[in-house]
Amino acid sequence: MNKTLKFPAVGPLVAIGGAEDKTSEANILQRVLSLTPVEEPVVGVITTASSIPAEVYEGYREAFGRLGAAEVLDIRIRERAESRDAGFLDMIERSDIIFVSGGDQMRLTNILGGSAALEAIRKRHDFGAVIAGTSAGAASMSTTMVYGGAADDSLRKGAVKMSAGFGLVAGVIIDTHFLERGRFSRLMEVGATNPEYLGVGLGEDAAVLFDGGTIRAFGPGHVVLVDSSKITGSNVFDLSDGEAVSVHNVIMHALVDGYGYSLTDRRVLTPDELRAIRPEQWIAYS
Amino acid sequence: MNKTLKFPAVGPLVAIGGAEDKTSEANILQRVLSLTPVEEPVVGVITTASSIPAEVYEGYREAFGRLGAAEVLDIRIRERAESRDAGFLDMIERSDIIFVSGGDQMRLTNILGGSAALEAIRKRHDFGAVIAGTSAGAASMSTTMVYGGAADDSLRKGAVKMSAGFGLVAGVIIDTHFLERGRFSRLMEVGATNPEYLGVGLGEDAAVLFDGGTIRAFGPGHVVLVDSSKITGSNVFDLSDGEAVSVHNVIMHALVDGYGYSLTDRRVLTPDELRAIRPEQWIAYS
Repeated sequence: MNKTLKFPAVGPLVAIGGAEDKTSEANILQRVLSLTPVEEPVVGVITTASSIPAEVYEGYREAFGRLGAAEVLDIRIRERAESRDAGFLDMIERSDIIFVSGGDQMRLTNILGGSAALEAIRKRHDFGAVIAGTSAGAASMSTTMVYGGAADDSLRKGAVKMSAGFGLVAGVIIDTHFLERGRFSRLMEVGATNPEYLGVGLGEDAAVLFDGGTIRAFGPGHVVLVDSSKITGSNVFDLSDGEAVSVHNVIMHALVDGYGYSLTDRRVLTPDELRAIRPEQWIAYS
Repeated sequence: MNKTLKFPAVGPLVAIGGAEDKTSEANILQRVLSLTPVEEPVVGVITTASSIPAEVYEGYREAFGRLGAAEVLDIRIRERAESRDAGFLDMIERSDIIFVSGGDQMRLTNILGGSAALEAIRKRHDFGAVIAGTSAGAASMSTTMVYGGAADDSLRKGAVKMSAGFGLVAGVIIDTHFLERGRFSRLMEVGATNPEYLGVGLGEDAAVLFDGGTIRAFGPGHVVLVDSSKITGSNVFDLSDGEAVSVHNVIMHALVDGYGYSLTDRRVLTPDELRAIRPEQWIAYS
């Protein structure tokens, strides 16, 4: 009865950099759909982050419908009180894919943080549902979430604004619209504040699949990884707010479709190497 | 008689990221003035790159005048024909500091490339005059010069536009307004095309002094160095124009005032290490 039973392991998690193609190509959305083994999947679209939920939902309804979804649900939670609404919880329960739209990530965490809806989403994920998020929906997946800070003002102590995200993926901090808005310095500052976390800078129309200890890049755009684990120096702890941050020996990788990264070994994986690693969800489905 | 005789070695070369403070602080312009041993130096301002030369000259006349320059010369070469004008050549000859303004670096190389004026500038530099340039005036100092390419479009093969610069400094490619315009991906693309060159990304109100094999950062802004010499992979030669460039293992350093870099050892130098290295021009003046 319960559809979740057919997924014995945690589902795929996809983070998208924003502005993904929704036209006939729809490279990334197609890939998101392909990640569930359900033939005609139900997609639940959460538009909580957006200030124009009707328009955003309509765009995804059309795109996912064209790509073969059986149903595209409008999970339009606008206020914290609605995050325990039985109708919305039921929609989450029914979704094979939960897609979190862009907008303001602070709206997302403020309205959904610690809610029954988030608990339901986590449970669906634990039982194999795909969780995908774009822009704010991607940024909020980190344990610590970047929510602000003008790119041209960053690398000044305190310029990058961080708060607690949903923690759907460990060990990384996700930023979006990365190349388009020149956010390299944001993730350099983030890395200086705590070198343990890998910065994942998603370009527009680019995505990553978090697959156990492996990151797989896909889509037409770029994924820039900012590895601060080998930094040799920084003045960040010596500064007052607003002072210029130095940080030395940050390693960056610009990945394109087909490349990946090993979070455990901290190194780029070529398409050949990636093919040799069987994706976790495939194992789960076999 | 010839003032150049008192400078036995090539003069200091300063590249500034643009939008340097011209008010009472004027941290960078003050430093530029301090680099000549001449007590009340003559500053020649070359506004060829700018479309508003009168305004730009006036700004520097006021700033350098206030900071102690004896004279600020208006070297307003607007056309290629004027680049051999005896009056302008004489101004260059008389300048202890030659300051090249911002604007369009292509105007600069088109009008001054291979000219008598450029030859005169090089000669002044060889005999110890300070050469400083901001924005376009800094970018044009490279052997290969970046002159265009929208930051949000870069890391696509062919997106970064390069041509031949003045070659006042070897081994580096300079980009300006670096953090403010999010140009990290430009220098990552440049590095993929030829890893030998160190990318020098100058933020606004930030500068570097090229001092033999050492780079010294100063000013309130950031200097980002993009070292592609250890890249482990890139698809750049496999692509058609417009396709997404991958590049792995690019090392970046965000330097602030007081830090430096050894071009020979490819490593960051701390303020303490820098103090131990006597600047070349000090040796020259002793």
